[in-house]
Amino acid sequence: MNMNHAMLTDLYEFSMANGYCATLPHTDQAVFDIFYRTVPDHGSFVIAAGLQQVVEALQAFHFDDTDIDYLRSLNLYSEAFLNELATMKLACRVTALPEGTPVFPREPLLTVEGPLMQVQLLETLLLNLVNHQSLIATKARRITAAAEGRPVMEFGARRAQGPDASVYGARAAVIGGCASTSNVLAAQLFHIPAAGTMAHSWVESFSDELTAFRAWAKVYPDNSALLVDTYDVLKSGVPNAITIFKELRATGHQPVGIRIDSGDITQLAKQARVMLDAAGFQDAKITASNALDETVIQSLLKEGAPIDNFGIGEKLITSASSPVLSGVYKMAALQTDGQWQPKIKVSASREKTTLPGHKQVYRLYHRDSHRAFADVIALADEILPETIAVVNANPLATQTRVTLADFTAKPLLQPVFAPGHTADVPTDVFAIQKYTRETLAALPEATQRLVNPDFYPVYLTPKLAEMQQKLIAVHHGN
Amino acid sequence: MNMNHAMLTDLYEFSMANGYCATLPHTDQAVFDIFYRTVPDHGSFVIAAGLQQVVEALQAFHFDDTDIDYLRSLNLYSEAFLNELATMKLACRVTALPEGTPVFPREPLLTVEGPLMQVQLLETLLLNLVNHQSLIATKARRITAAAEGRPVMEFGARRAQGPDASVYGARAAVIGGCASTSNVLAAQLFHIPAAGTMAHSWVESFSDELTAFRAWAKVYPDNSALLVDTYDVLKSGVPNAITIFKELRATGHQPVGIRIDSGDITQLAKQARVMLDAAGFQDAKITASNALDETVIQSLLKEGAPIDNFGIGEKLITSASSPVLSGVYKMAALQTDGQWQPKIKVSASREKTTLPGHKQVYRLYHRDSHRAFADVIALADEILPETIAVVNANPLATQTRVTLADFTAKPLLQPVFAPGHTADVPTDVFAIQKYTRETLAALPEATQRLVNPDFYPVYLTPKLAEMQQKLIAVHHGN
Repeated sequence: MNMNHAMLTDLYEFSMANGYCATLPHTDQAVFDIFYRTVPDHGSFVIAAGLQQVVEALQAFHFDDTDIDYLRSLNLYSEAFLNELATMKLACRVTALPEGTPVFPREPLLTVEGPLMQVQLLETLLLNLVNHQSLIATKARRITAAAEGRPVMEFGARRAQGPDASVYGARAAVIGGCASTSNVLAAQLFHIPAAGTMAHSWVESFSDELTAFRAWAKVYPDNSALLVDTYDVLKSGVPNAITIFKELRATGHQPVGIRIDSGDITQLAKQARVMLDAAGFQDAKITASNALDETVIQSLLKEGAPIDNFGIGEKLITSASSPVLSGVYKMAALQTDGQWQPKIKVSASREKTTLPGHKQVYRLYHRDSHRAFADVIALADEILPETIAVVNANPLATQTRVTLADFTAKPLLQPVFAPGHTADVPTDVFAIQKYTRETLAALPEATQRLVNPDFYPVYLTPKLAEMQQKLIAVHHGN
Repeated sequence: MNMNHAMLTDLYEFSMANGYCATLPHTDQAVFDIFYRTVPDHGSFVIAAGLQQVVEALQAFHFDDTDIDYLRSLNLYSEAFLNELATMKLACRVTALPEGTPVFPREPLLTVEGPLMQVQLLETLLLNLVNHQSLIATKARRITAAAEGRPVMEFGARRAQGPDASVYGARAAVIGGCASTSNVLAAQLFHIPAAGTMAHSWVESFSDELTAFRAWAKVYPDNSALLVDTYDVLKSGVPNAITIFKELRATGHQPVGIRIDSGDITQLAKQARVMLDAAGFQDAKITASNALDETVIQSLLKEGAPIDNFGIGEKLITSASSPVLSGVYKMAALQTDGQWQPKIKVSASREKTTLPGHKQVYRLYHRDSHRAFADVIALADEILPETIAVVNANPLATQTRVTLADFTAKPLLQPVFAPGHTADVPTDVFAIQKYTRETLAALPEATQRLVNPDFYPVYLTPKLAEMQQKLIAVHHGN
């Protein structure tokens, strides 16, 4: 897939970049952070994702002649600026949390430092990639958590918001915990097992259901997952499946199972299970796949539905119950005349005030239990002492200092891109999935809860908190 | 952009196609229809969109050697089938409603006829393209209707579900009524005006707001839309904007206006309007752009907010309040031994029973008023008589016959793709927008209402209704 998305940019980024080019010294450098404030589905964290595509997009970033001609045709920009674009080499340094890291509100999950003009031009593209994949990875985590270890297949390509959404969505779904995808292009690109068997149209293409199943079993004797709800699950689908399973067993093949895609899944699965077991097919699996999400899965399992696999379509691939992750890209520092100035964006809504400066995020683990118990956002050049008195990162929370001790602090932001050098970002999606699972498992259980989770504490170091307070005071003094 | 999406297919399409290849005669042909059952946001219709990309995808459709190698590596498919894929030329005929047509539940909006194997392989891709763009065009229609003629700018690239979603979403947004997009790539590809001015980071990059505005006005004296909410809209932003507007006017330039992106938009816009008017800038426009959708716009306008333009981000580009259009692709007929057999999918949910046969959709206009008053779904080879007794297309509605007369019937499904020939599908998005507007204007006003719309009648001809009833009876007799 074409990863040069340089033109996927809001017009105002070009307009500001042209303005900087005309107005400010070319030596001006800036730092911007990506973070978010609200967790989808009232959860307590987001699973960071999309970094591989960010790095690929940075590596491929350039403007073609046709792009320059198009921008010239807008009659907005100087030839000097257009020439800068035509010859641009990205001179930015990017740090990011590893893909699959649970990230909490206000924590920078990606930072960009470089020439102000370039850093500005990257805003839209980086947000697009990070917001989308983090949204879907977060939803997949919820759905696979609800499935309690049963494999979840990503089935959403036909309802995804365009081709990229289906492909990168499938990738993010695996990072969040899915076992496979029906999307062949995503499977091919990201080495994900491809999943799926037949649609109702297969059954309709034959004179009757039994003939359709038998034709299938002849072609796929070892992949006989039969869709049993084209006509009537219990009167026709399951009895016909059992007939075929007997024929398969008689010829030395192991029947796979059945899929139910409509109706009262709990009741149908329970009765199908009884029928399969009675016929001696205790190993045949039952897959359910009709407009499911974490809420429906929890309810099915609570009712005792004997489901072995879930296939999840539109509710996962669009994060339908919460389809937007509102990550933002905010200036944290500006270098003028060689001097770094921390920057904040103040706001009438106090909780929207941003965090200034070059920053690092630390996850603090209890020294004995190795469980994470808090995150601390620090200035990048700070060294965390053994004992530290911190304040809450949420300006609406109490600002009483809390003393933290007996911890191991793990820095989360890592360099991923620099001029002439790209770090080895993990690209094996199942390795990322494993990292996600392990990093999640170290969080408090109450934080991982799907409904009414306990909010995990995120603190600021005294230095960072004071820097923010000073800048707020300057603004109010204005 | 690469339009060959042949691998963007659910695995089961390949598995079924390989199965057909092994099982059924190659002469078997099929007809599949795309239609949907539920309108997003409880509206009464969907705006069909995505057809240009469908046609481009059909033209580009092919499998590369690497694709064939990948499919071979799955150890599922025969060499005969892989060879069919490698040498495949699409031999399908496609009909579709023109982009921008309001389409009602159960109406086929696209039909594909061709070799069963090929028609099956196209399912996922066609649904993906049509579902996504129709969803966004439908949302854009709602939002632009709420704006009552005020220009709406599409601003959602950073929150779209991936790069394609931002680009094709912007295209669909224009079809549904938007005037412009901030997305430069979409603007370039589809000849849409590119919109936008500055972000808060511009203002923060200068020592103070006035300096930032003055720098902007120097670079863009004729594009001075100033973002006034970085610090304080009424105490700082608007007064500074007025200072700059005076300087611009003194040098012969026409100030553009201000943008408000946070806070109580109604109150801020009202007071800003008073301040701008008092300073002699009655022509300066006010743009609002903070998490808006049709509901918020209606409420702002009801409160009398003096807003001239709207910029709409995440709520439009993801159709956030209703982020899925569940279009389906169902078999309507199958040709075996040279004989067409109409097909239906029955279902425990009676309203899910599909419509069999090759079909055409007619929109009926009153002969005198030229307003549309009903749609009729007919078999493709029927000629509508002057007076016709029809039944409701919704199986849950009363099946009493209704007699229709004094109409002009316009057939909506048109050929768009055939082997060796592609129809001229309109690609000028503003021409499509104009067609959308005119086609909408002919619908009853109560059908166009955003909340609790009056449902528009969709009927079946007696022939089609009888064909469906006969097939239902056969299934229940089974």
